[in-house]
Amino acid sequence: MRAAWIAVDWGTSHLRLWRMAASGAVLDRIDDDRGMGRLTPAEFQPVLEELLTKDLKQGPLTVVCCGMAGSRQGWAEARYASVPCAPPGIGQATHLRLTEARLDVHILPGLSQAIPADVMRGEETQIAGFLAVQPEFDGVLCLPGTHCKWVHVSAGEVVSFKTVMTGEMFALLARQSVLRHSVSADGLDHTAFVGAVSRAMSRPEALVGDLFSLRAEALLAGLDGVVARSRLSGLLIGAELAAARAYWLGREVVILGESRLALAYQAALAAQGLAADCVNAEEMTLNGLRAAYAGVR
Amino acid sequence: MRAAWIAVDWGTSHLRLWRMAASGAVLDRIDDDRGMGRLTPAEFQPVLEELLTKDLKQGPLTVVCCGMAGSRQGWAEARYASVPCAPPGIGQATHLRLTEARLDVHILPGLSQAIPADVMRGEETQIAGFLAVQPEFDGVLCLPGTHCKWVHVSAGEVVSFKTVMTGEMFALLARQSVLRHSVSADGLDHTAFVGAVSRAMSRPEALVGDLFSLRAEALLAGLDGVVARSRLSGLLIGAELAAARAYWLGREVVILGESRLALAYQAALAAQGLAADCVNAEEMTLNGLRAAYAGVR
Repeated sequence: MRAAWIAVDWGTSHLRLWRMAASGAVLDRIDDDRGMGRLTPAEFQPVLEELLTKDLKQGPLTVVCCGMAGSRQGWAEARYASVPCAPPGIGQATHLRLTEARLDVHILPGLSQAIPADVMRGEETQIAGFLAVQPEFDGVLCLPGTHCKWVHVSAGEVVSFKTVMTGEMFALLARQSVLRHSVSADGLDHTAFVGAVSRAMSRPEALVGDLFSLRAEALLAGLDGVVARSRLSGLLIGAELAAARAYWLGREVVILGESRLALAYQAALAAQGLAADCVNAEEMTLNGLRAAYAGVR
Repeated sequence: MRAAWIAVDWGTSHLRLWRMAASGAVLDRIDDDRGMGRLTPAEFQPVLEELLTKDLKQGPLTVVCCGMAGSRQGWAEARYASVPCAPPGIGQATHLRLTEARLDVHILPGLSQAIPADVMRGEETQIAGFLAVQPEFDGVLCLPGTHCKWVHVSAGEVVSFKTVMTGEMFALLARQSVLRHSVSADGLDHTAFVGAVSRAMSRPEALVGDLFSLRAEALLAGLDGVVARSRLSGLLIGAELAAARAYWLGREVVILGESRLALAYQAALAAQGLAADCVNAEEMTLNGLRAAYAGVR
Protein backbone atom coordinates (compact mmCIF):
# COMPACT_ATOMS: atom_id res chain seq x y z
CA MET A 1 0.00 0.00 0.00
CA ARG A 2 1.40 3.35 -1.00
CA ALA A 3 2.02 5.91 1.73
CA ALA A 4 -0.07 9.10 1.65
CA TRP A 5 2.69 10.98 3.45
CA ILE A 6 5.83 10.35 5.51
CA ALA A 7 6.54 11.19 9.14
CA VAL A 8 10.20 11.34 10.26
CA ASP A 9 11.96 11.86 13.57
CA TRP A 10 15.57 12.41 12.46
CA GLY A 11 17.80 12.37 15.51
CA THR A 12 21.54 12.58 16.08
CA SER A 13 22.23 8.84 16.20
CA HIS A 14 19.38 7.37 14.19
CA LEU A 15 16.17 8.14 12.34
CA ARG A 16 12.69 6.74 12.66
CA LEU A 17 10.44 6.99 9.63
CA TRP A 18 6.75 6.09 9.51
CA ARG A 19 4.89 5.49 6.24
CA MET A 20 1.47 6.98 6.89
CA ALA A 21 -2.00 6.32 5.41
CA ALA A 22 -4.29 9.22 4.53
CA SER A 23 -6.34 8.27 7.60
CA GLY A 24 -3.35 8.99 9.84
CA ALA A 25 -2.76 5.30 10.53
CA VAL A 26 0.80 3.95 10.45
CA LEU A 27 1.45 1.61 7.50
CA ASP A 28 4.91 0.68 8.74
CA ARG A 29 7.89 2.00 10.60
CA ILE A 30 11.51 2.06 9.41
CA ASP A 31 14.48 2.45 11.77
CA ASP A 32 17.83 3.43 10.34
CA ASP A 33 21.17 4.27 11.96
CA ARG A 34 22.02 7.06 9.52
CA GLY A 35 21.41 9.77 12.10
CA MET A 36 22.27 13.44 11.63
CA GLY A 37 25.66 12.91 13.27
CA ARG A 38 26.79 10.63 10.42
CA LEU A 39 25.54 12.73 7.50
CA THR A 40 26.66 15.80 5.61
CA PRO A 41 23.84 18.08 4.44
CA ALA A 42 24.03 16.59 0.93
CA GLU A 43 23.55 13.06 2.24
CA PHE A 44 20.07 13.46 3.74
CA GLN A 45 18.11 13.50 0.48
CA PRO A 46 19.67 10.27 -0.89
CA VAL A 47 18.84 8.47 2.37
CA LEU A 48 15.17 9.43 2.00
CA GLU A 49 15.15 8.52 -1.70
CA GLU A 50 16.55 5.11 -0.85
CA LEU A 51 14.09 4.44 1.97
CA LEU A 52 11.13 5.68 -0.11
CA THR A 53 12.03 4.24 -3.54
CA LYS A 54 8.74 2.40 -4.05
CA ASP A 55 6.52 5.26 -2.90
CA LEU A 56 8.34 7.82 -5.05
CA LYS A 57 7.83 5.68 -8.18
CA GLN A 58 4.12 6.31 -7.72
CA GLY A 59 4.33 10.09 -7.45
CA PRO A 60 5.19 13.02 -5.21
CA LEU A 61 5.35 12.60 -1.45
CA THR A 62 5.11 15.02 1.46
CA VAL A 63 7.58 14.43 4.30
CA VAL A 64 7.18 16.07 7.72
CA CYS A 65 10.34 15.84 9.77
CA CYS A 66 11.32 16.80 13.31
CA GLY A 67 14.58 16.50 15.24
CA MET A 68 18.24 17.20 14.67
CA ALA A 69 17.90 17.21 10.86
CA GLY A 70 16.84 20.84 11.46
CA SER A 71 19.97 21.82 13.37
CA ARG A 72 22.71 24.01 11.93
CA GLN A 73 24.86 20.92 11.32
CA GLY A 74 21.87 18.99 9.94
CA TRP A 75 20.07 18.93 6.60
CA ALA A 76 18.81 22.52 6.61
CA GLU A 77 18.50 24.84 9.55
CA ALA A 78 15.03 25.27 11.03
CA ARG A 79 15.49 28.15 13.43
CA TYR A 80 14.29 27.77 16.99
CA ALA A 81 10.98 29.29 18.03
CA SER A 82 11.44 31.19 21.28
CA VAL A 83 9.38 30.37 24.37
CA PRO A 84 6.85 31.28 25.61
CA CYS A 85 5.05 30.04 22.51
CA ALA A 86 2.94 27.17 21.24
CA PRO A 87 4.97 24.25 19.86
CA PRO A 88 5.85 25.25 16.28
CA GLY A 89 3.57 24.03 13.48
CA ILE A 90 4.01 23.62 9.76
CA GLY A 91 3.82 27.39 9.21
CA GLN A 92 7.19 27.76 10.96
CA ALA A 93 8.77 24.75 9.28
CA THR A 94 11.66 25.02 6.84
CA HIS A 95 10.36 23.99 3.40
CA LEU A 96 13.16 22.49 1.32
CA ARG A 97 13.77 22.94 -2.42
CA LEU A 98 15.28 19.66 -3.55
CA THR A 99 16.79 18.25 -6.75
CA GLU A 100 14.23 15.43 -6.44
CA ALA A 101 11.05 17.42 -7.12
CA ARG A 102 8.78 14.59 -6.01
CA LEU A 103 10.04 15.02 -2.44
CA ASP A 104 8.22 17.79 -0.56
CA VAL A 105 10.08 18.06 2.74
CA HIS A 106 9.15 20.21 5.74
CA ILE A 107 11.47 20.36 8.77
CA LEU A 108 9.95 21.53 12.03
CA PRO A 109 11.97 23.94 14.19
CA GLY A 110 12.97 23.36 17.80
CA LEU A 111 12.38 25.60 20.80
CA SER A 112 14.81 27.95 22.51
CA GLN A 113 14.77 29.83 25.81
CA ALA A 114 16.92 32.89 26.39
CA ILE A 115 17.29 32.86 30.20
CA PRO A 116 18.31 30.40 31.43
CA ALA A 117 19.66 29.46 28.00
CA ASP A 118 18.15 26.21 26.79
CA VAL A 119 17.21 24.44 23.56
CA MET A 120 15.27 21.41 22.35
CA ARG A 121 14.81 19.72 18.98
CA GLY A 122 12.34 16.90 18.52
CA GLU A 123 10.76 17.09 21.96
CA GLU A 124 8.66 20.11 20.86
CA THR A 125 6.87 17.78 18.43
CA GLN A 126 6.11 15.31 21.23
CA ILE A 127 4.73 18.24 23.22
CA ALA A 128 2.60 19.32 20.24
CA GLY A 129 1.36 15.73 20.01
CA PHE A 130 0.48 15.66 23.68
CA LEU A 131 -1.39 18.98 23.39
CA ALA A 132 -3.27 17.62 20.36
CA VAL A 133 -4.94 15.10 22.68
CA GLN A 134 -4.93 17.15 25.90
CA PRO A 135 -5.24 20.77 24.73
CA GLU A 136 -6.32 22.01 28.18
CA PHE A 137 -3.31 20.53 30.01
CA ASP A 138 -1.78 22.85 32.58
CA GLY A 139 1.24 21.32 34.24
CA VAL A 140 4.64 19.85 33.56
CA LEU A 141 5.82 17.34 31.01
CA CYS A 142 8.90 15.27 31.78
CA LEU A 143 10.65 13.83 28.72
CA PRO A 144 13.33 11.38 29.88
CA GLY A 145 16.24 10.53 27.59
CA THR A 146 19.91 11.25 27.03
CA HIS A 147 19.02 14.83 27.90
CA CYS A 148 15.87 14.93 30.01
CA LYS A 149 13.54 17.90 29.46
CA TRP A 150 11.20 19.40 32.05
CA VAL A 151 8.57 21.51 30.33
CA HIS A 152 6.04 23.85 31.88
CA VAL A 153 2.95 23.92 29.67
CA SER A 154 -0.01 26.24 30.13
CA ALA A 155 -2.78 27.60 27.86
CA GLY A 156 -1.45 25.57 24.92
CA GLU A 157 2.00 27.12 25.17
CA VAL A 158 5.42 26.07 26.39
CA VAL A 159 6.07 28.58 29.17
CA SER A 160 9.60 27.48 30.09
CA PHE A 161 11.77 24.39 30.09
CA LYS A 162 14.93 22.92 31.57
CA THR A 163 17.36 20.34 30.21
CA VAL A 164 19.35 18.04 32.49
CA MET A 165 22.04 15.78 31.01
CA THR A 166 21.31 12.91 33.39
CA GLY A 167 21.12 10.13 30.80
CA GLU A 168 24.40 11.15 29.22
CA MET A 169 26.16 11.51 32.58
CA PHE A 170 24.89 8.09 33.65
CA ALA A 171 26.20 6.48 30.45
CA LEU A 172 29.62 8.17 30.77
CA LEU A 173 30.03 7.31 34.46
CA ALA A 174 28.66 3.76 34.20
CA ARG A 175 30.57 2.77 31.06
CA GLN A 176 33.68 4.93 30.86
CA SER A 177 34.68 6.11 34.32
CA VAL A 178 36.39 4.06 37.04
CA LEU A 179 32.87 3.16 38.22
CA ARG A 180 32.51 0.86 35.19
CA HIS A 181 34.38 -1.82 37.17
CA SER A 182 31.70 -1.78 39.87
CA VAL A 183 28.43 -1.06 38.04
CA SER A 184 26.51 -3.84 36.29
CA ALA A 185 25.35 -3.39 32.69
CA ASP A 186 21.74 -3.93 33.61
CA GLY A 187 19.24 -4.43 36.41
CA LEU A 188 17.56 -2.18 38.96
CA ASP A 189 17.21 -2.67 42.70
CA HIS A 190 14.21 -0.54 43.62
CA THR A 191 15.17 -0.04 47.27
CA ALA A 192 18.73 1.03 46.43
CA PHE A 193 17.45 3.31 43.67
CA VAL A 194 14.86 5.09 45.80
CA GLY A 195 17.30 5.39 48.70
CA ALA A 196 19.84 7.08 46.45
CA VAL A 197 17.20 9.43 45.01
CA SER A 198 16.34 10.48 48.53
CA ARG A 199 20.00 10.88 49.49
CA ALA A 200 20.74 13.12 46.49
CA MET A 201 17.63 15.21 47.04
CA SER A 202 18.25 15.77 50.73
CA ARG A 203 22.01 16.34 50.35
CA PRO A 204 22.58 17.58 46.79
CA GLU A 205 25.94 19.04 47.79
CA ALA A 206 27.17 15.52 48.60
CA LEU A 207 26.54 14.13 45.10
CA VAL A 208 30.02 14.41 43.61
CA GLY A 209 31.50 12.95 46.78
CA ASP A 210 29.06 10.04 46.85
CA LEU A 211 30.02 8.76 43.41
CA PHE A 212 33.44 7.33 44.26
CA SER A 213 31.95 5.53 47.27
CA LEU A 214 30.38 3.08 44.81
CA ARG A 215 33.85 2.05 43.65
CA ALA A 216 35.29 1.98 47.17
CA GLU A 217 32.39 -0.11 48.55
CA ALA A 218 32.84 -2.57 45.69
CA LEU A 219 36.55 -2.91 46.51
CA LEU A 220 36.19 -3.06 50.29
CA ALA A 221 32.80 -4.65 50.86
CA GLY A 222 31.91 -6.44 47.63
CA LEU A 223 29.06 -4.08 46.74
CA ASP A 224 26.72 -5.84 44.29
CA GLY A 225 26.88 -4.51 40.72
CA VAL A 226 23.13 -4.14 40.34
CA VAL A 227 22.92 -2.24 43.64
CA ALA A 228 25.80 -0.01 42.51
CA ARG A 229 24.05 0.67 39.19
CA SER A 230 20.79 1.43 40.99
CA ARG A 231 22.50 3.82 43.38
CA LEU A 232 24.32 5.60 40.55
CA SER A 233 21.03 6.01 38.66
CA GLY A 234 19.25 7.12 41.84
CA LEU A 235 21.93 9.65 42.76
CA LEU A 236 21.81 11.25 39.31
CA ILE A 237 18.01 11.26 38.99
CA GLY A 238 17.73 12.53 42.57
CA ALA A 239 20.16 15.35 41.73
CA GLU A 240 18.03 16.12 38.68
CA LEU A 241 14.84 16.22 40.76
CA ALA A 242 16.56 18.62 43.15
CA ALA A 243 17.64 20.83 40.23
CA ALA A 244 14.18 20.72 38.64
CA ARG A 245 12.19 21.02 41.88
CA ALA A 246 10.58 24.29 40.78
CA TYR A 247 9.15 22.42 37.81
CA TRP A 248 7.47 19.45 39.44
CA LEU A 249 6.71 20.55 42.99
CA GLY A 250 2.96 20.96 43.45
CA ARG A 251 2.25 20.51 39.74
CA GLU A 252 0.55 17.89 37.64
CA VAL A 253 3.35 15.94 35.95
CA VAL A 254 3.03 13.65 32.91
CA ILE A 255 6.01 11.61 31.76
CA LEU A 256 6.32 11.20 27.99
CA GLY A 257 7.76 7.70 27.78
CA GLU A 258 7.17 4.18 28.98
CA SER A 259 10.76 2.90 28.82
CA ARG A 260 12.57 1.55 31.84
CA LEU A 261 14.14 4.99 32.19
CA ALA A 262 10.71 6.62 32.17
CA LEU A 263 9.52 4.17 34.82
CA ALA A 264 12.57 5.05 36.94
CA TYR A 265 11.56 8.73 36.83
CA GLN A 266 8.02 7.70 37.74
CA ALA A 267 9.32 5.74 40.74
CA ALA A 268 11.57 8.62 41.81
CA LEU A 269 8.66 11.07 41.67
CA ALA A 270 6.36 8.59 43.45
CA ALA A 271 8.87 8.48 46.31
CA GLN A 272 8.36 12.26 46.61
CA GLY A 273 4.60 11.69 46.86
CA LEU A 274 3.92 12.69 43.28
CA ALA A 275 1.84 10.38 41.05
CA ALA A 276 2.92 11.01 37.45
CA ASP A 277 1.30 9.22 34.52
CA CYS A 278 3.43 7.76 31.73
CA VAL A 279 2.24 8.07 28.14
CA ASN A 280 3.64 6.55 24.97
CA ALA A 281 6.29 8.92 23.60
CA GLU A 282 6.31 7.51 20.08
CA GLU A 283 2.56 8.02 19.84
CA MET A 284 3.06 11.64 20.94
CA THR A 285 5.73 12.19 18.28
CA LEU A 286 3.36 10.78 15.67
CA ASN A 287 0.50 12.94 16.94
CA GLY A 288 2.71 15.98 16.63
CA LEU A 289 3.79 15.10 13.10
CA ARG A 290 0.14 14.36 12.16
CA ALA A 291 -0.90 17.77 13.49
CA ALA A 292 1.84 19.41 11.43
CA TYR A 293 0.87 17.45 8.31
CA ALA A 294 -2.73 18.62 8.72
CA GLY A 295 -1.39 22.13 8.16
CA VAL A 296 0.24 21.16 4.82
CA ARG A 297 -3.00 20.11 3.17
CA MET B 1 76.65 6.27 37.63
CA ARG B 2 75.04 3.18 39.08
CA ALA B 3 71.86 3.61 41.10
CA ALA B 4 71.98 2.72 44.80
CA TRP B 5 68.25 1.96 44.75
CA ILE B 6 65.14 2.57 42.66
CA ALA B 7 62.00 4.56 43.48
CA VAL B 8 58.85 3.84 41.44
CA ASP B 9 55.37 5.32 41.31
CA TRP B 10 53.49 2.75 39.22
CA GLY B 11 50.09 4.15 38.32
CA THR B 12 47.20 2.96 36.18
CA SER B 13 48.19 4.72 32.97
CA HIS B 14 51.94 5.16 33.33
CA LEU B 15 54.90 4.66 35.60
CA ARG B 16 57.56 7.03 36.85
CA LEU B 17 60.87 5.57 37.94
CA TRP B 18 63.71 7.42 39.61
CA ARG B 19 67.25 6.06 39.75
CA MET B 20 68.48 7.15 43.18
CA ALA B 21 71.94 7.79 44.62
CA ALA B 22 72.83 6.52 48.09
CA SER B 23 72.60 10.16 49.25
CA GLY B 24 68.92 10.24 48.28
CA ALA B 25 69.61 12.47 45.29
CA VAL B 26 67.87 11.67 41.99
CA LEU B 27 70.29 10.44 39.28
CA ASP B 28 67.62 10.44 36.60
CA ARG B 29 63.92 9.93 36.02
CA ILE B 30 62.30 7.56 33.53
CA ASP B 31 58.70 7.93 32.34
CA ASP B 32 57.01 5.00 30.65
CA ASP B 33 53.45 4.40 29.44
CA ARG B 34 53.31 0.78 30.55
CA GLY B 35 50.96 1.53 33.44
CA MET B 36 49.21 -1.12 35.54
CA GLY B 37 46.16 -0.98 33.27
CA ARG B 38 48.15 -2.36 30.33
CA LEU B 39 50.00 -5.13 32.17
CA THR B 40 49.21 -8.62 33.39
CA PRO B 41 50.88 -9.58 36.70
CA ALA B 42 53.61 -11.49 34.82
CA GLU B 43 54.52 -8.45 32.74
CA PHE B 44 55.68 -6.14 35.52
CA GLN B 45 59.03 -7.81 36.22
CA PRO B 46 60.20 -7.76 32.56
CA VAL B 47 59.39 -4.03 32.35
CA LEU B 48 61.63 -3.33 35.35
CA GLU B 49 64.38 -5.62 34.01
CA GLU B 50 64.30 -3.75 30.72
CA LEU B 51 64.38 -0.29 32.31
CA LEU B 52 67.15 -1.31 34.74
CA THR B 53 69.34 -3.48 32.48
CA LYS B 54 72.55 -1.54 33.11
CA ASP B 55 72.09 -1.29 36.87
CA LEU B 56 71.26 -5.01 37.22
CA LYS B 57 74.46 -5.97 35.39
CA GLN B 58 76.36 -4.47 38.30
CA GLY B 59 74.48 -6.35 41.03
CA PRO B 60 71.32 -6.58 43.10
CA LEU B 61 68.98 -3.62 43.38
CA THR B 62 66.27 -2.63 45.86
CA VAL B 63 63.10 -1.19 44.35
CA VAL B 64 60.52 0.65 46.46
CA CYS B 65 57.23 1.03 44.63
CA CYS B 66 53.93 2.78 45.36
CA GLY B 67 50.69 3.06 43.41
CA MET B 68 48.36 0.79 41.48
CA ALA B 69 51.02 -1.91 41.02
CA GLY B 70 49.88 -2.95 44.50
CA SER B 71 46.20 -3.32 43.58
CA ARG B 72 44.44 -6.67 43.22
CA GLN B 73 44.69 -6.37 39.42
CA GLY B 74 48.30 -5.16 39.63
CA TRP B 75 51.63 -6.89 40.15
CA ALA B 76 50.98 -8.25 43.63
CA GLU B 77 48.37 -7.14 46.11
CA ALA B 78 49.54 -4.89 48.91
CA ARG B 79 46.53 -4.78 51.21
CA TYR B 80 45.19 -1.44 52.33
CA ALA B 81 46.07 -0.13 55.76
CA SER B 82 42.92 1.12 57.47
CA VAL B 83 42.62 4.70 58.75
CA PRO B 84 43.10 6.17 61.26
CA CYS B 85 46.76 5.22 60.93
CA ALA B 86 50.12 6.64 59.91
CA PRO B 87 50.88 6.34 56.18
CA PRO B 88 52.18 2.77 55.73
CA GLY B 89 55.95 2.24 55.77
CA ILE B 90 58.22 -0.50 54.51
CA GLY B 91 57.14 -2.81 57.34
CA GLN B 92 53.68 -3.08 55.79
CA ALA B 93 54.95 -3.38 52.21
CA THR B 94 54.51 -6.54 50.13
CA HIS B 95 57.98 -8.03 49.57
CA LEU B 96 58.09 -9.92 46.27
CA ARG B 97 59.87 -13.19 45.51
CA LEU B 98 60.95 -12.92 41.90
CA THR B 99 62.57 -15.15 39.29
CA GLU B 100 65.19 -12.40 38.89
CA ALA B 101 66.90 -12.69 42.28
CA ARG B 102 68.83 -9.46 41.81
CA LEU B 103 65.56 -7.52 41.99
CA ASP B 104 64.44 -6.86 45.57
CA VAL B 105 60.99 -5.26 45.18
CA HIS B 106 58.81 -3.80 47.94
CA ILE B 107 55.30 -2.55 47.10
CA LEU B 108 53.72 -0.11 49.55
CA PRO B 109 50.04 -0.57 50.44
CA GLY B 110 47.32 2.03 50.01
CA LEU B 111 44.88 3.32 52.62
CA SER B 112 41.26 2.39 53.13
CA GLN B 113 38.42 3.89 55.14
CA ALA B 114 35.38 1.83 56.16
CA ILE B 115 32.72 4.55 56.59
CA PRO B 116 32.25 6.35 54.29
CA ALA B 117 33.94 3.73 52.12
CA ASP B 118 37.04 5.14 50.44
CA VAL B 119 40.43 4.04 49.15
CA MET B 120 43.70 5.52 47.91
CA ARG B 121 46.84 4.07 46.32
CA GLY B 122 49.89 6.20 45.71
CA GLU B 123 48.65 9.31 47.50
CA GLU B 124 49.51 7.76 50.91
CA THR B 125 53.16 7.90 49.87
CA GLN B 126 52.87 11.59 49.03
CA ILE B 127 51.32 12.11 52.45
CA ALA B 128 54.18 10.17 54.08
CA GLY B 129 56.59 12.40 52.15
CA PHE B 130 54.86 15.53 53.33
CA LEU B 131 54.91 14.32 56.95
CA ALA B 132 58.62 13.54 56.59
CA VAL B 133 59.26 17.27 56.18
CA GLN B 134 56.35 18.59 58.29
CA PRO B 135 55.85 15.95 61.00
CA GLU B 136 53.85 18.32 63.21
CA PHE B 137 51.30 19.23 60.52
CA ASP B 138 47.71 19.32 61.74
CA GLY B 139 45.29 20.14 58.96
CA VAL B 140 44.10 19.04 55.56
CA LEU B 141 46.00 17.95 52.47
CA CYS B 142 44.33 18.38 49.08
CA LEU B 143 45.74 16.12 46.35
CA PRO B 144 44.24 17.20 42.99
CA GLY B 145 44.15 14.77 40.09
CA THR B 146 41.83 12.46 38.18
CA HIS B 147 40.40 11.59 41.58
CA CYS B 148 41.06 14.41 44.04
CA LYS B 149 41.72 13.37 47.64
CA TRP B 150 40.99 15.47 50.74
CA VAL B 151 42.94 14.13 53.69
CA HIS B 152 42.66 15.10 57.35
CA VAL B 153 46.06 14.66 58.99
CA SER B 154 46.75 14.99 62.70
CA ALA B 155 49.45 13.71 65.08
CA GLY B 156 51.29 12.04 62.21
CA GLU B 157 48.24 10.00 61.19
CA VAL B 158 45.67 10.09 58.43
CA VAL B 159 42.44 10.58 60.38
CA SER B 160 39.98 10.42 57.47
CA PHE B 161 39.82 11.14 53.76
CA LYS B 162 37.43 11.74 50.91
CA THR B 163 37.76 11.09 47.18
CA VAL B 164 35.93 13.21 44.59
CA MET B 165 36.04 12.19 40.91
CA THR B 166 36.15 15.77 39.65
CA GLY B 167 39.08 15.37 37.24
CA GLU B 168 37.55 12.32 35.61
CA MET B 169 34.10 13.94 35.36
CA PHE B 170 35.63 17.04 33.80
CA ALA B 171 37.47 14.96 31.20
CA LEU B 172 34.36 12.93 30.32
CA LEU B 173 32.09 15.97 30.08
CA ALA B 174 34.59 18.20 28.26
CA ARG B 175 35.75 15.60 25.74
CA GLN B 176 32.98 13.05 25.32
CA SER B 177 29.61 14.61 26.19
CA VAL B 178 27.59 17.02 24.03
CA LEU B 179 29.50 19.81 25.81
CA ARG B 180 32.62 18.89 23.80
CA HIS B 181 31.23 21.01 20.94
CA SER B 182 31.22 24.09 23.19
CA VAL B 183 34.23 23.69 25.48
CA SER B 184 37.72 24.63 24.31
CA ALA B 185 40.60 22.17 24.75
CA ASP B 186 42.58 24.63 26.83
CA GLY B 187 42.63 28.00 28.55
CA LEU B 188 41.19 29.39 31.77
CA ASP B 189 39.21 32.58 32.28
CA HIS B 190 39.72 33.37 35.95
CA THR B 191 36.55 35.44 36.38
CA ALA B 192 34.32 32.82 34.74
CA PHE B 193 36.01 30.08 36.77
CA VAL B 194 35.61 31.78 40.14
CA GLY B 195 32.03 32.81 39.33
CA ALA B 196 31.13 29.20 38.55
CA VAL B 197 32.83 27.97 41.74
CA SER B 198 30.71 30.39 43.70
CA ARG B 199 27.53 29.42 41.83
CA ALA B 200 28.06 25.69 42.49
CA MET B 201 28.89 26.27 46.15
CA SER B 202 25.88 28.47 46.83
CA ARG B 203 23.44 26.36 44.79
CA PRO B 204 24.86 22.81 44.71
CA GLU B 205 21.42 21.43 43.82
CA ALA B 206 21.55 23.39 40.54
CA LEU B 207 24.78 21.76 39.30
CA VAL B 208 23.35 19.09 37.01
CA GLY B 209 20.94 21.61 35.54
CA ASP B 210 23.66 24.18 34.94
CA LEU B 211 25.78 21.89 32.75
CA PHE B 212 23.57 21.89 29.65
CA SER B 213 23.36 25.69 29.79
CA LEU B 214 26.94 25.77 28.53
CA ARG B 215 25.84 24.04 25.32
CA ALA B 216 22.68 26.13 24.98
CA GLU B 217 24.54 29.42 25.51
CA ALA B 218 27.06 28.40 22.88
CA LEU B 219 24.27 27.69 20.39
CA LEU B 220 22.14 30.73 21.19
CA ALA B 221 24.62 33.38 22.25
CA GLY B 222 28.01 32.26 20.91
CA LEU B 223 29.48 31.53 24.37
CA ASP B 224 33.28 31.58 24.12
CA GLY B 225 34.91 28.14 24.36
CA VAL B 226 37.46 29.20 26.98
CA VAL B 227 34.72 30.74 29.11
CA ALA B 228 32.65 27.56 28.74
CA ARG B 229 35.64 25.44 29.76
CA SER B 230 36.32 27.69 32.75
CA ARG B 231 32.70 27.54 33.86
CA LEU B 232 32.60 23.76 33.53
CA SER B 233 35.78 23.46 35.59
CA GLY B 234 34.47 25.96 38.14
CA LEU B 235 31.09 24.25 38.49
CA LEU B 236 32.73 20.88 39.15
CA ILE B 237 35.42 22.17 41.52
CA GLY B 238 32.78 24.28 43.29
CA ALA B 239 30.59 21.20 43.70
CA GLU B 240 33.61 19.38 45.10
CA LEU B 241 34.34 22.17 47.58
CA ALA B 242 30.69 22.00 48.68
CA ALA B 243 30.95 18.21 49.13
CA ALA B 244 34.28 18.50 50.98
CA ARG B 245 33.37 21.56 53.05
CA ALA B 246 33.79 19.67 56.35
CA TYR B 247 37.40 19.01 55.34
CA TRP B 248 38.66 22.48 54.49
CA LEU B 249 36.42 24.86 56.42
CA GLY B 250 38.40 26.51 59.19
CA ARG B 251 41.43 24.26 58.65
CA GLU B 252 44.95 24.77 57.44
CA VAL B 253 45.02 23.40 53.88
CA VAL B 254 48.09 22.46 51.84
CA ILE B 255 47.71 21.45 48.19
CA LEU B 256 50.10 18.73 47.02
CA GLY B 257 50.68 19.83 43.46
CA GLU B 258 51.75 22.80 41.41
CA SER B 259 50.03 21.90 38.13
CA ARG B 260 47.46 24.14 36.49
CA LEU B 261 44.82 21.95 38.12
CA ALA B 262 46.41 22.47 41.54
CA LEU B 263 46.50 26.23 40.93
CA ALA B 264 42.79 26.11 40.01
CA TYR B 265 42.02 24.50 43.39
CA GLN B 266 44.16 27.16 45.05
CA ALA B 267 42.19 29.90 43.27
CA ALA B 268 38.86 28.28 44.17
CA LEU B 269 39.85 28.07 47.85
CA ALA B 270 41.22 31.64 47.77
CA ALA B 271 37.79 32.82 46.58
CA GLN B 272 36.40 31.26 49.81
CA GLY B 273 38.93 33.27 51.82
CA LEU B 274 41.27 30.35 52.39
CA ALA B 275 44.97 30.75 51.58
CA ALA B 276 46.34 27.29 50.73
CA ASP B 277 49.99 26.69 49.92
CA CYS B 278 50.99 24.51 46.98
CA VAL B 279 53.95 22.16 47.34
CA ASN B 280 55.66 19.99 44.71
CA ALA B 281 53.83 16.66 44.56
CA GLU B 282 56.66 14.77 42.87
CA GLU B 283 59.04 15.83 45.60
CA MET B 284 56.55 14.56 48.19
CA THR B 285 56.29 11.18 46.40
CA LEU B 286 60.08 10.94 46.39
CA ASN B 287 60.25 11.90 50.07
CA GLY B 288 57.77 9.16 50.87
CA LEU B 289 59.68 6.57 48.88
CA ARG B 290 62.98 7.73 50.49
CA ALA B 291 61.42 7.34 53.95
CA ALA B 292 60.27 3.82 53.03
CA TYR B 293 63.70 2.92 51.63
CA ALA B 294 65.31 4.07 54.88
CA GLY B 295 63.36 1.26 56.54
CA VAL B 296 64.84 -1.37 54.19
CA ARG B 297 68.43 -0.76 55.19
